[in-house]
Amino acid sequence: MSTPAPLVSLVMGSDSDWPVMKLAAEALREFGIPFEADVVSAHRMPEDMIAYGKEAHTRGIRVIIAGAGGAAHLPGMLASVTPLPVIGVPVPLKTLDGMDSLLSIVQMPAGVPVATVSIGGARNAGLLAVRMLATGTDELAAALQEKLIDFAAELRQVAADKGA
Amino acid sequence: MSTPAPLVSLVMGSDSDWPVMKLAAEALREFGIPFEADVVSAHRMPEDMIAYGKEAHTRGIRVIIAGAGGAAHLPGMLASVTPLPVIGVPVPLKTLDGMDSLLSIVQMPAGVPVATVSIGGARNAGLLAVRMLATGTDELAAALQEKLIDFAAELRQVAADKGA
Amino acid sequence: MSTPAPLVSLVMGSDSDWPVMKLAAEALREFGIPFEADVVSAHRMPEDMIAYGKEAHTRGIRVIIAGAGGAAHLPGMLASVTPLPVIGVPVPLKTLDGMDSLLSIVQMPAGVPVATVSIGGARNAGLLAVRMLATGTDELAAALQEKLIDFAAELRQVAADKGA
Amino acid sequence: MSTPAPLVSLVMGSDSDWPVMKLAAEALREFGIPFEADVVSAHRMPEDMIAYGKEAHTRGIRVIIAGAGGAAHLPGMLASVTPLPVIGVPVPLKTLDGMDSLLSIVQMPAGVPVATVSIGGARNAGLLAVRMLATGTDELAAALQEKLIDFAAELRQVAADKGA
Amino acid sequence: MSTPAPLVSLVMGSDSDWPVMKLAAEALREFGIPFEADVVSAHRMPEDMIAYGKEAHTRGIRVIIAGAGGAAHLPGMLASVTPLPVIGVPVPLKTLDGMDSLLSIVQMPAGVPVATVSIGGARNAGLLAVRMLATGTDELAAALQEKLIDFAAELRQVAADKGA
Amino acid sequence: MSTPAPLVSLVMGSDSDWPVMKLAAEALREFGIPFEADVVSAHRMPEDMIAYGKEAHTRGIRVIIAGAGGAAHLPGMLASVTPLPVIGVPVPLKTLDGMDSLLSIVQMPAGVPVATVSIGGARNAGLLAVRMLATGTDELAAALQEKLIDFAAELRQVAADKGA
Amino acid sequence: MSTPAPLVSLVMGSDSDWPVMKLAAEALREFGIPFEADVVSAHRMPEDMIAYGKEAHTRGIRVIIAGAGGAAHLPGMLASVTPLPVIGVPVPLKTLDGMDSLLSIVQMPAGVPVATVSIGGARNAGLLAVRMLATGTDELAAALQEKLIDFAAELRQVAADKGA
Amino acid sequence: MSTPAPLVSLVMGSDSDWPVMKLAAEALREFGIPFEADVVSAHRMPEDMIAYGKEAHTRGIRVIIAGAGGAAHLPGMLASVTPLPVIGVPVPLKTLDGMDSLLSIVQMPAGVPVATVSIGGARNAGLLAVRMLATGTDELAAALQEKLIDFAAELRQVAADKGA
Repeated sequence: MSTPAPLVSLVMGSDSDWPVMKLAAEALREFGIPFEADVVSAHRMPEDMIAYGKEAHTRGIRVIIAGAGGAAHLPGMLASVTPLPVIGVPVPLKTLDGMDSLLSIVQMPAGVPVATVSIGGARNAGLLAVRMLATGTDELAAALQEKLIDFAAELRQVAADKGA
Repeated sequence: MSTPAPLVSLVMGSDSDWPVMKLAAEALREFGIPFEADVVSAHRMPEDMIAYGKEAHTRGIRVIIAGAGGAAHLPGMLASVTPLPVIGVPVPLKTLDGMDSLLSIVQMPAGVPVATVSIGGARNAGLLAVRMLATGTDELAAALQEKLIDFAAELRQVAADKGA
Repeated sequence: MSTPAPLVSLVMGSDSDWPVMKLAAEALREFGIPFEADVVSAHRMPEDMIAYGKEAHTRGIRVIIAGAGGAAHLPGMLASVTPLPVIGVPVPLKTLDGMDSLLSIVQMPAGVPVATVSIGGARNAGLLAVRMLATGTDELAAALQEKLIDFAAELRQVAADKGA
Repeated sequence: MSTPAPLVSLVMGSDSDWPVMKLAAEALREFGIPFEADVVSAHRMPEDMIAYGKEAHTRGIRVIIAGAGGAAHLPGMLASVTPLPVIGVPVPLKTLDGMDSLLSIVQMPAGVPVATVSIGGARNAGLLAVRMLATGTDELAAALQEKLIDFAAELRQVAADKGA
Repeated sequence: MSTPAPLVSLVMGSDSDWPVMKLAAEALREFGIPFEADVVSAHRMPEDMIAYGKEAHTRGIRVIIAGAGGAAHLPGMLASVTPLPVIGVPVPLKTLDGMDSLLSIVQMPAGVPVATVSIGGARNAGLLAVRMLATGTDELAAALQEKLIDFAAELRQVAADKGA
Repeated sequence: MSTPAPLVSLVMGSDSDWPVMKLAAEALREFGIPFEADVVSAHRMPEDMIAYGKEAHTRGIRVIIAGAGGAAHLPGMLASVTPLPVIGVPVPLKTLDGMDSLLSIVQMPAGVPVATVSIGGARNAGLLAVRMLATGTDELAAALQEKLIDFAAELRQVAADKGA
Repeated sequence: MSTPAPLVSLVMGSDSDWPVMKLAAEALREFGIPFEADVVSAHRMPEDMIAYGKEAHTRGIRVIIAGAGGAAHLPGMLASVTPLPVIGVPVPLKTLDGMDSLLSIVQMPAGVPVATVSIGGARNAGLLAVRMLATGTDELAAALQEKLIDFAAELRQVAADKGA
Repeated sequence: MSTPAPLVSLVMGSDSDWPVMKLAAEALREFGIPFEADVVSAHRMPEDMIAYGKEAHTRGIRVIIAGAGGAAHLPGMLASVTPLPVIGVPVPLKTLDGMDSLLSIVQMPAGVPVATVSIGGARNAGLLAVRMLATGTDELAAALQEKLIDFAAELRQVAADKGA
């Protein structure tokens, strides 16, 4: 029995980002999306990072989720070498509450977009990847779109139950 | 001869957002993506906005781009009623340089992601929509992915020509 | 014996907002104002939220207090569907100290006002609701206005007693 | 024929605030609310300001709108001497884009609320005053509530006409 | 034996400010400056506050130190009713790290200055009061100026001893 | 006939600060305070600056007003070598609206206070110097205190005249 | 006659950065330092940028100055592939006054330093490069150190001449 | 056996900065760079500080690392009296997360550069000093440059090992 090939690549600048980034992994698992997770540091492994970004789409990866903190260059640098959509997760560090991470990720120049989620918002990064996969025209997409509609209904129910 | 059905919905909270948002339209045109553009205000047309968001995917729309300024609720509210990926463009208003718009769009709660681009970064919103459509498994996706790779090569060439 | 119909609706985006929002409830109780409290999430229950906002004034509700954090859309969205005054309470989340919540609530576009109080300032939201009810022309208003004047006198006394 | 007694008091810290604050006056006029407008500086006329605030409700004033910039103390100081609801308008000055004005107005301590609107948002201050008057139980309130519903419908129509 | 009349008035908006403000008291004691300390809330005791400020200089007070947090109006309001120099201490509250307090105190309009010190910088407020008293032409001033020069020498010595 | 010896020293980091700082000079002139004005750059003339600060009080100077922008070190460095009260004026430069200047001046460590006024608030720096001189026990002080009371009355009158 | 080999590499993310970055070139020219200037975009030419950074020190380059705006990744990415000191210049763009550029450049993770100068501070970047070259042990260094001392003396003289 | 003369001077405004600044010392030790560490307060020892800065290069010091917090004047003041490159480390204090320290250090006026690293980034300050020493033309420089290349390779290896 073979493992399904990963569709989403979940990378982070440092393994200390994992407590934040694992929420993306959980979201992907809830939707049954095969993914790979790795440490790919823009600053400590710049050439590996470029290589990783360049060939991701050739390996069947369809969305990249990248988390980083401080002067967070990983999401933007990956976006510059891949045609895939890149989702950036600003990881908050010891000072500035993630504002530096957010601005370093979201303020990309015209030509190279990064789909940025909230500070520490890795769960939403996973869900956004699902939405991207669900917007295709194949069976997986159709199945995921249905699941997303169910997911929204559950969110609603849980919230409604907390009310009166 | 029929007009192709729009794949991307480009909406904004006010027609005063158009000078910013038209850059998204230009990017979509460059890649030959059919789109529709409309004013859908979260605050002045809340029920129309909900209806618009709810049925977008049933009309064949595959990505929503939403721009708004200040307490910018349009992208997040649309994301709450559609399974489609929603790209949010923070439009800067007279004060605060778009920081209010950015935070109102990007800081979404877990469960409802918005793919946020830079302040005034509508061109990148268009390009991000292309990347999303290009990550599918159909012919359009394959064609767009190739175009995106060419596009990156041109960006590189233009930048390189400016040097040396 | 019947319960008096609520005059104030106290809603919040998530039950995790309750530790902040209960201070509004306490203030309302001190002034004997009947109120209802509920979880009404803009992002997880958008249609319920719209429905709730639309019919609030038809049920005798006279003021809405809405608390939310991060990209806090609840107060503004309710304000867009009700003719009632809406008081917004910015709830601080894990990062940014509530600055995102504040800007998402207060920076509303012309046409749809939200009466915003301080970050975490739910007690003042309750007191502001009382002031609104007290500014009417009926007996309740007259009684409340007197109570507010007494309340201010007590505040003064407590503060004065802390001095020499 | 007598002039109707003002129901709303529109005050500002300096006559240089008028270009911002006149938008509140326009909104009140649109709804036919009689109001008075005056310069009442917290810092240059502190005792007049206290006196003004203390007796406003005795003269039939039912809502106070106060605009100020920088270390903007006028709305909060008025709120400390009146039982009336006070609406604060942060006026942006030459530097800081009104962020100082906003924080000086909105961050009031528990006990003394100010209903704060957006930076420069005087039109919304006027509309919020109307909503407050409309939430009463008398004929004026009923008439205003209907007008507010019509007003929202017009906002919607204007926005909708800009689309499509 | 009589107590010397206070030269400095040390006031704060709330007794919860005391852990910060007592550092001003300590500095004054080190220089032997008689002072009085009191809770004088701008928002809960506005008229007492005005009265206090108006007559301070008639009682022999020569410098006022005022600490407050959030929408911190106390220093500026006192400055508006006294000819004395007023030193403002921004007290940090639960959120925003005192940035709201700082801006509410320092950004005073032309005509009414407040001598603002750092966030939580009550010790410096005390020392600044000493410098003000030391800049006079009487014996006390001469004695204080000498003490300040000794104080600076001690500061230097303590710092120098920590080095090498 | 001799020129009166200056009581206030008005210094700035660069002659480009003069359009801001001249407002301090005007305020001093209105109160008849003799002063000297000079460019004393902390960064370009560090030793001159130290020498200037060290001997200012020996020349009869009683208050120093220092304006600077960006990483504004002049007020704090002068305060570290003089027993005189130093008033700091944050001068706004091309970016950041003076927030860098403000923080560089106001956030002084315990032991070395700077009396900081608002961004660009040189007029208030002049008035604060007058208040300091007015708080002494000599005839000049008495005369100035009276003038300050008259000045406040005029401020009130001008503001009051703008109302009504 | 041969051109001297460049010792400093002056690169920028876009030719629109030149109006800011040319001030670095001017400073280098004043000290007679041969340099090269080029557009090397981290996001549009990522592989060229990596190659450029990797071989700079092998070509005799001894300091790299890199300017970029927004999500400014160029200085940090170059620093990750070169052993040379990299000086980062935050270039302000249309919004946020360069705060995003500053944080994206200065907040580098441990291991990969960037020597950051002020927003728009390209002249200081040039002067800092001179200081780095002047701190060596060869003749050039000795000559430059002397020039730097003269330069400081001139700065002082110009500033002093502006004073009285 | 003699101790090697220090090449780097590591100074800080207060011994409370040591927990941050010792990371610079560790980095220097890893590269075998002799250094001295001292408390040199700009505000408490201004003349010692000036003297220290003026003669540092005459004692063989080749790089100065200076850490300070709040209104952090030490790095900039040292830079104004030395021809050596000065590296500034913003030390975060109790409030503002080091933003005040960062701006006070990095926003230096043209003419006097400070090589600023991240908030609390003392390790990078040490590594930047190594890079500066490694960019010379002597044997030490050659040896250090090789070590830096090895160091980068190790960083890469450690990061790579954490992945996969």
